[in-house]
Amino acid sequence: MSVYHTLTAADAVEYARRHAGVDQPGALVAAEEVGDGNLNLVFKILDGQGVSRVIVKQALPYVRCVGESWPLTLDRARIEAETLLVHGGFCPRHTVRILHHDAGLAVMIQEDLSDHTIWRRELINNVYYPQAAGQLGEYLARALFHTSDFYQLPQHKKAEVGRFSNPEMCQITEDLFFTDPYIDHERNAYPPSLAADVAAIRGDGALKVAVAGLKHRFLSQAQALLHGDVHSGSIFVAEGRLKVIDAEFGYYGPMGFDLGTAMGNLLLNYCGLPGLLDLRQAADAREQRLRDVRELWLAFAGGFQALALEKSRDIMLAEPGYARQFLHQVWVDAVGYCGTELIRRTIGFAHVADLDTISDEAMRHQCQRQALSLGGTLILAAARIPDVDALVARVRQNG
Amino acid sequence: MSVYHTLTAADAVEYARRHAGVDQPGALVAAEEVGDGNLNLVFKILDGQGVSRVIVKQALPYVRCVGESWPLTLDRARIEAETLLVHGGFCPRHTVRILHHDAGLAVMIQEDLSDHTIWRRELINNVYYPQAAGQLGEYLARALFHTSDFYQLPQHKKAEVGRFSNPEMCQITEDLFFTDPYIDHERNAYPPSLAADVAAIRGDGALKVAVAGLKHRFLSQAQALLHGDVHSGSIFVAEGRLKVIDAEFGYYGPMGFDLGTAMGNLLLNYCGLPGLLDLRQAADAREQRLRDVRELWLAFAGGFQALALEKSRDIMLAEPGYARQFLHQVWVDAVGYCGTELIRRTIGFAHVADLDTISDEAMRHQCQRQALSLGGTLILAAARIPDVDALVARVRQNG
Repeated sequence: MSVYHTLTAADAVEYARRHAGVDQPGALVAAEEVGDGNLNLVFKILDGQGVSRVIVKQALPYVRCVGESWPLTLDRARIEAETLLVHGGFCPRHTVRILHHDAGLAVMIQEDLSDHTIWRRELINNVYYPQAAGQLGEYLARALFHTSDFYQLPQHKKAEVGRFSNPEMCQITEDLFFTDPYIDHERNAYPPSLAADVAAIRGDGALKVAVAGLKHRFLSQAQALLHGDVHSGSIFVAEGRLKVIDAEFGYYGPMGFDLGTAMGNLLLNYCGLPGLLDLRQAADAREQRLRDVRELWLAFAGGFQALALEKSRDIMLAEPGYARQFLHQVWVDAVGYCGTELIRRTIGFAHVADLDTISDEAMRHQCQRQALSLGGTLILAAARIPDVDALVARVRQNG
Repeated sequence: MSVYHTLTAADAVEYARRHAGVDQPGALVAAEEVGDGNLNLVFKILDGQGVSRVIVKQALPYVRCVGESWPLTLDRARIEAETLLVHGGFCPRHTVRILHHDAGLAVMIQEDLSDHTIWRRELINNVYYPQAAGQLGEYLARALFHTSDFYQLPQHKKAEVGRFSNPEMCQITEDLFFTDPYIDHERNAYPPSLAADVAAIRGDGALKVAVAGLKHRFLSQAQALLHGDVHSGSIFVAEGRLKVIDAEFGYYGPMGFDLGTAMGNLLLNYCGLPGLLDLRQAADAREQRLRDVRELWLAFAGGFQALALEKSRDIMLAEPGYARQFLHQVWVDAVGYCGTELIRRTIGFAHVADLDTISDEAMRHQCQRQALSLGGTLILAAARIPDVDALVARVRQNG
């Protein structure tokens, strides 16, 4: 901690020259701070032609959008870099490349992805990347399989669970996903016109029991090294390409959480589309989103099963039929976590632009109401939704 | 590690004088080594009248019954003492009292329980302690509830999961419970007359898929600080009293494992009784065992639910109805783990006297066959056995 100081733009350039491992360090001449997140400084390091060559990212010791009153562990920078290095080892194609990291400064250097765009932005602007969902499924299959008990030797995995213990960041999720939306809490944010919907959620004992189960599994099931925050704003896309970034919530948790978060953000977009596009475009884009959800799950489950068949090192977990049975539990969890993401992004602390940028107020509230309703339905019905086709049918049924 | 050396009897006396905190240390004059286990030196420390006053227990760096060729971590002594201290904090009535412990020497001093008897011995000798099963259920309810997410604050619990990471001892369980009995392995031990039964188990894909699920949950579900080895040989009983000892397998795992191990040992005794007692006695004792299984579960579940109602600190897990729903999952797990205990104690490395001391060979094999058959049934049918009364009915049905 004692070496920690926040980097200036000049510091960032100097740091990149020393540690990025680029061919001509002297060509790095300027830095542009582009952090639009809440938690970090993010510098693009530019060459003499103004081309961004690498990214220097430094964690701040507090939540940036709130200020220094909400302190936040710097250890998340180590967790993020080490999570991405592990995932990158198993899925280099879809994990941002970490060139260097330093726990003391809470800083890392990562590859520049200026030729990519944040997926959420493209989803909102109706730019379709038909391969993206499948590639995200492939990333999750590779990252989660190789860090699970199917592949990790037990003693190594137990050490990894310790290395990726991430209590402060997990608590943010524990609070924002699984608690705040279901109680009266100052961090929540929703318009008065949703008050009745929110009250209905808080009065629904069966729903809260189901959420308690999802929270309990988030707290106790160390199935694999999760990304922990794999929403469409943590994903860069380009034509035929996809890269996952921002893994500061990485920890050993239930696989369904990553799948559910990813599916939930596609469905948040689905819910927002009628407010973002004209009627005809919205209908087409909604079909694309449902195809994306389907492709995401099938790519994950198919990839995981193929890896389980080929590479399982635990002789019992390798038993034919077990991976399929386990993946069904992951599926049920994923549907539930997907529902909690829909709810917490609509009425909780951290919203999504897919809903919040809808300019027409009445339409925005209608879309938000749909997200809430769909979220509640998925949480309650998760165990009775046998597969992704049934999920798609449920979503259509919800309107 | 450098301070470690095995204690002589004289060392043990001196150690107890210094650290046991007894009123008159000088009254401790002799030590008697009574370790009948495989892993430890156990000294009774005697006063001038030959009365045992405290126990000094030291871990050996290898499996005693096998020899120095099977090394075993000394850290298990720290884990054992710290597990018993935690459990003792929440259930002092039924946890052996730790007076002192020293990780470097892998030694602990615990209260003398010479006025108690090992429960397994009494079960075999048909000495009935009607309160014992209920007290064991109370111990498990208090120990597991207070170390679970219902009661522990999340950040503290994550630190505790790290403190009780117990990879080497867990691996013993992972191998002996969940792998060896289902494959050809030199550690297994069973008579040739059981070869067909063993082959049937190894050829049963559905059974092995179910065991894989139990193993996977043992590997990944950090629900509570388990005892980890709570069989009837780890339990002292006396009239109206019960004390749990020997927690070197302690770690954060699925609650059903402790419940299943405990129930499994009662059912191993149930299976062995026809070979241990005459017909009439055996029938009565079997009814007692079934009452014990029932009482054990009901005391655990009732105790846990009462604690959940009164003391849950997680606002979501406190939702009315959640504890009951969670306990049903624990129940299903417990039935499965009970089945694995029945199988591994019959054909695996470590057997139980309830079966092995049956002198008539044909009868012994018949009892062993019943244990195997019951074990397989419970593993396969766990999800379809709704409660403990249904379990008792299944056991009767099994013969």
